[in-house]
Amino acid sequence: MSQAVGDIGLIGLAVMGQNLILNMNDKGFTVVAYNRTTSKVQHFLDNEAKGTKIVGAFSIEELCAKLKTPRKIVLLVKAGKAVDDFIEQLEPHLEKGDIIIDGGNSYYKDSIRRTETLEKKGLLFVGSGVSGGEEGARFGPSLMPGGSVAAWPAIKPIFQAAAAQVGSEPCCDWMGESGAGHYVKMVHNGIEYGDMQLIAEAYDILKRGLGLKEGEIAAIFDKWNKGVLDSFLIDITANILKYNDDDGEPLITKILDQAGQKGTGKWTAVEALDAGTPVTLIGEAVFARCLSAIKAERSRASKIIAGPQKEPFKGDKQQFIDDLEQALYASKIISYTQGFMLMRETAKELKWNLNFASIARIWRGGCIIKSVFLSDITSAYEKNLNLESLLFDDFFNKAITKAQPGWRRVVAQAVLWGVPTPAFSTALAFFDGYRSEIVPANMLQAQRDYFGAHTFKVLPGKENSKLPANTDIHINWTGRGGNVSSSSYVA
Amino acid sequence: MSQAVGDIGLIGLAVMGQNLILNMNDKGFTVVAYNRTTSKVQHFLDNEAKGTKIVGAFSIEELCAKLKTPRKIVLLVKAGKAVDDFIEQLEPHLEKGDIIIDGGNSYYKDSIRRTETLEKKGLLFVGSGVSGGEEGARFGPSLMPGGSVAAWPAIKPIFQAAAAQVGSEPCCDWMGESGAGHYVKMVHNGIEYGDMQLIAEAYDILKRGLGLKEGEIAAIFDKWNKGVLDSFLIDITANILKYNDDDGEPLITKILDQAGQKGTGKWTAVEALDAGTPVTLIGEAVFARCLSAIKAERSRASKIIAGPQKEPFKGDKQQFIDDLEQALYASKIISYTQGFMLMRETAKELKWNLNFASIARIWRGGCIIKSVFLSDITSAYEKNLNLESLLFDDFFNKAITKAQPGWRRVVAQAVLWGVPTPAFSTALAFFDGYRSEIVPANMLQAQRDYFGAHTFKVLPGKENSKLPANTDIHINWTGRGGNVSSSSYVA
Repeated sequence: MSQAVGDIGLIGLAVMGQNLILNMNDKGFTVVAYNRTTSKVQHFLDNEAKGTKIVGAFSIEELCAKLKTPRKIVLLVKAGKAVDDFIEQLEPHLEKGDIIIDGGNSYYKDSIRRTETLEKKGLLFVGSGVSGGEEGARFGPSLMPGGSVAAWPAIKPIFQAAAAQVGSEPCCDWMGESGAGHYVKMVHNGIEYGDMQLIAEAYDILKRGLGLKEGEIAAIFDKWNKGVLDSFLIDITANILKYNDDDGEPLITKILDQAGQKGTGKWTAVEALDAGTPVTLIGEAVFARCLSAIKAERSRASKIIAGPQKEPFKGDKQQFIDDLEQALYASKIISYTQGFMLMRETAKELKWNLNFASIARIWRGGCIIKSVFLSDITSAYEKNLNLESLLFDDFFNKAITKAQPGWRRVVAQAVLWGVPTPAFSTALAFFDGYRSEIVPANMLQAQRDYFGAHTFKVLPGKENSKLPANTDIHINWTGRGGNVSSSSYVA
Repeated sequence: MSQAVGDIGLIGLAVMGQNLILNMNDKGFTVVAYNRTTSKVQHFLDNEAKGTKIVGAFSIEELCAKLKTPRKIVLLVKAGKAVDDFIEQLEPHLEKGDIIIDGGNSYYKDSIRRTETLEKKGLLFVGSGVSGGEEGARFGPSLMPGGSVAAWPAIKPIFQAAAAQVGSEPCCDWMGESGAGHYVKMVHNGIEYGDMQLIAEAYDILKRGLGLKEGEIAAIFDKWNKGVLDSFLIDITANILKYNDDDGEPLITKILDQAGQKGTGKWTAVEALDAGTPVTLIGEAVFARCLSAIKAERSRASKIIAGPQKEPFKGDKQQFIDDLEQALYASKIISYTQGFMLMRETAKELKWNLNFASIARIWRGGCIIKSVFLSDITSAYEKNLNLESLLFDDFFNKAITKAQPGWRRVVAQAVLWGVPTPAFSTALAFFDGYRSEIVPANMLQAQRDYFGAHTFKVLPGKENSKLPANTDIHINWTGRGGNVSSSSYVA
């Protein structure tokens, strides 16, 4: 058909969709744009898309008719039912080998399901993480596609061209089978929650702890952005702190301190609990948003609950600021260590071939967490594809060893000040637990055996005739309980 | 039928089942015992049940035939499929008004479903939390029944007789509609995870921090058990620490430091994330078990990751131990504050009438978390049934204010020592966040608006023409982004 001019179609003209279309147009592709409320299509054509090659479609049928085969259709709509609805509407107009790409923040288990369902019908499905917000979508996002592997060669030229570039390397690669794309994006977003929370805590420590003004704090973030913390989020934090309202007051001080959290950050934390992997920092970051959300209750609490006696800081301020930089850096190393641990466990369980070097590589640009730091993670996994933990890599091991004294001083000081540092603190607790040959879980096991006959195992090296190796041992601690151990019932 | 002699039946003769039967028998009820592997029935009758009124049943049919109507049948089997299987097997032998009671650790949403399903068939369903381990089941557990309210009068005499008694009050009351019984039990178990983790951290601080021996630590716990921490778990911890192996070494030092966590503790943490309630202490307690579980990885890490320089403790040891008591107490107050917050939110959402005074009251005895502390919580809710937060109660407000300086000193010291205190630390972070009129979530909102046009709201009192009240505001931070705000897409 002469009208099949489109290289790729896109459904959903909210900010991300519009910008991604403009981006792909810039790279020389002909994009067909559709939106359920079709007046938005005309508005887009008449405004943002004016003077471009972008083609409008005013029905699903028209959209599909205007695309070259195999058709490639990107959905940028609200995750959940809307995705299934559009897939259902698209199906009658598609042919074998056509590709539906869900670029929304879908739950990865939905993407696993959609891949299976569509492949059975001869169609291909890609669940792709798209990160970078409106700026990223417009000028080059980080793209994390996964799903029907046969779709990759067809979408690769468009996706890698639209993606951010770091040097000559596009921030887009094939993440893996089935739900891998959205899974990696989920962890990315969890890590983003963590990075943001760490920055918020650093800001709080500088403001409420050291008593600095926003302008002074901006200068600190600007300085940090030239060192190991060099990243998009540190950069925009400095800019935010410098942005004044018309009366000269920093705008940040006029923003309601209440953050939403119902998204992928929470999913990552739930996933971590389900996988039994201690991704504590993201967990705390999510909970910190929950605590922020109950603003009215906090406000009442602030009036009746006393904090510590406020004592002026007597130490060396610059030393403390340098310590804080190290604390933020070390906590960030822990957060990424935990995030990659989680992906490692899931890859094992679902038999996915996640390439951790490649994941770190495509996060270096385009996305919200882009940073110099991610190049170091890339190097670590490039050196050793089977690296067990980031903390086992020489570079990070040395970095965290160096950061450690300052990190501890900062957390201890914040605790005495009464400035909450849930993410800094949990990172340090994880670090100290992770490097502990023995943690006090022996006490938990003793208690569980004491009150519930749940049994325990002997510590290797301590075996004897009463404590045989690799055996579930129950001790009659009190001399009263029976000898029945609790096999089918967990108290 | 002359053979219908049983007051109540029980399925599942693992330790909890056997002990609960013996307990009800002691209270004068005739219990009919059944187990899928029927040889266990005979073994029970020939041994533990010998000389009692306990009646055996060797088939489901026989079990039902031997029960007076309305039949009351307790399931103490593995949560999940086994419960549904037994319900299915029981149904053909039951009459309208008969009662199935699930005393296992079932997920509360399963209990909601089972209540609905069975009520439609004219049967009654009770999901009952049973806490107290083998000792509790034998000599008086804490019982948390909820479900079909018509069942309560029929089971009340047996349940309240079998339950632990505190003074003249039984540790059993009706928790509420549908899944309320198992929901309250789930939160109970989450709190139990938290209590255990706090004790484990205190043990670790005394051992690895102060360098005390198990015998010395036992004496400290014995002393604590006479004060505000007086509780079953503190008591058994002292006993555990005093229990020596045949060679005179404390047994605790020979127990593998690896704890399981796939149970109701995890459910509570997931539930908290889903409800958006910051139940951080239980979350950290669950993650601490996850970290304990990767023993081999920790062991490798311990050999290559350096901790802080160990410096001998120069302070007053007794003062520090007293501080630690206060730290444990304050952290426990936070944990219960969070647990009750979660129940408050769920009750709101599911329109359940949870009676918090009653919940605290029945936890005072029989269960693993029984303590003097729970009497104080009972008093707080008795004084004010609509108490918003435990921290708003005078008693707890004063207690935590008093505990605060020691709590901070302990956490700061542990951080410098490198002894991990995830639960102590998160409790303190929550406390400091909760009592903060302003938390740094304004920074999160600014960042989200900066990179994703997610909008923010103005802080009340800071409104102006550019920052109108109760409005989603988007600022063009860079001068580059468009004016499209992100409504349907969350990055």
